[in-house]
Amino acid sequence: MSIERLDFAATLARKAGDLGMDYFRRLETLTVTKKGHQDLVSEADRDVETLVRKALAAAYPEDGIVGEEHGDVEGTSGYTWVIDPIDGTANFLTSIPQWCVIIACVHNGETIVGVIHDPNVNETFRAAKGHGAFVNDRPIKVTDSDSLSNGSLGIGFNGRTTASDAINCIGALVSKGGVFFRNASGGLMLAYAASGRLIGYCESHMNAWDCLAGMLITTEAGGEVAPYDAHDTLINGARVVVGGPGVFKEICDIADASFAPLEMKQSA
Amino acid sequence: MSIERLDFAATLARKAGDLGMDYFRRLETLTVTKKGHQDLVSEADRDVETLVRKALAAAYPEDGIVGEEHGDVEGTSGYTWVIDPIDGTANFLTSIPQWCVIIACVHNGETIVGVIHDPNVNETFRAAKGHGAFVNDRPIKVTDSDSLSNGSLGIGFNGRTTASDAINCIGALVSKGGVFFRNASGGLMLAYAASGRLIGYCESHMNAWDCLAGMLITTEAGGEVAPYDAHDTLINGARVVVGGPGVFKEICDIADASFAPLEMKQSA
Repeated sequence: MSIERLDFAATLARKAGDLGMDYFRRLETLTVTKKGHQDLVSEADRDVETLVRKALAAAYPEDGIVGEEHGDVEGTSGYTWVIDPIDGTANFLTSIPQWCVIIACVHNGETIVGVIHDPNVNETFRAAKGHGAFVNDRPIKVTDSDSLSNGSLGIGFNGRTTASDAINCIGALVSKGGVFFRNASGGLMLAYAASGRLIGYCESHMNAWDCLAGMLITTEAGGEVAPYDAHDTLINGARVVVGGPGVFKEICDIADASFAPLEMKQSA
Repeated sequence: MSIERLDFAATLARKAGDLGMDYFRRLETLTVTKKGHQDLVSEADRDVETLVRKALAAAYPEDGIVGEEHGDVEGTSGYTWVIDPIDGTANFLTSIPQWCVIIACVHNGETIVGVIHDPNVNETFRAAKGHGAFVNDRPIKVTDSDSLSNGSLGIGFNGRTTASDAINCIGALVSKGGVFFRNASGGLMLAYAASGRLIGYCESHMNAWDCLAGMLITTEAGGEVAPYDAHDTLINGARVVVGGPGVFKEICDIADASFAPLEMKQSA
């Protein structure tokens, strides 16, 4: 069941990415006002989400759907799709070619399918639970590094949590000889962590549609992921810490020392 | 003279990018050891720089050449080419598709030509002094934002300066409601600042081959750039602060408050 849903989600993410690219190219070439840009981005977000929702509803009418833009659809099958049509909206808005389409599927409190598609360079990161992780058709694995100084750590930053979370985190990392990376798409950074391009990723709070796919792909790529419950994440979001096995403990220590307790925060 | 050199440099940067992509794709698909990766990246860096040097020497045999990898070539024409074959080497090494080829030309202590080519998404940012700035064939301009909270600021971080420079900078920015961006290619981030994708960029020290092209493109795109002398930058590197006119002063204030004095540092 999960492989079938994975294949469907990967194909759908590519179609959604193509539609997103149509808007993205228009944004790049149009000289419109900032307000005009924002409106076009909102339209892109809605249109891409509608495309994804319609395709899912047609193929899996009994599944639920949770997304960033529209309201939730309750399902009866026990499967819930979790979608972010355009992750990295600020990049999309400003024509930075670093954003992605994210599709995950949750069943019985576990993520069983995760897809992160980057239409700018045509890379589709994907995993089904128990079946390994891939970018396009190549298997991926997390870093085998055993030192924070050997590679870069992705750091998330968002308006939902206290600003000091990310700053503390960068300070702690750099003091241990590490280097930070933030390209403003949590989905892409998680995909990079899963494929060993980054040694890991941490963010004090992410919403389900931003993190579930990437956490599954990381696990399937041999990485470690701080414990989470997918069902609870759907409701409250989660603190996200992932990394290669040789550096995961140190990344957790940095996160623990840097992030304010999650209960102090609001899910957006 | 500068337009002719600009056209030549833009065409050459695209050829260099194609060669870099040949290596980049091999790296992605090969399963080699970390040492093997590093060797292949070094080979890519050398090969791309050789291609650029040979083409420049053939077309402009009296011009000088300064680059990251090979020794300097003294010229007799008064023109000096300044090249970084692969900017964002750490990304290149780890298969993150965010790196670029940089070519600049200096004459009488001023940068007269700047090209930043991103072969992953086929974008060529370019400017000749006095002739405006472009990405591919479209004119670009810096942000018209007048607030640090309206957009993201690129922040550079490197092993040559004290780690606290970047951390102080991020802290100061975030305390003013700003957001930081660091995708580990100074060339790309400067190109994004020039095209209004980022509101600006700052780094406590950059080498000439990383910054001269981007600073010229920013100026030609209507942006402000902290004063520098191109000839001195060739020898010592420079502190780099650029931004849209409405936010430049605030970015300078952040840099002044955050960066240790440049004389305490070593040029690599």
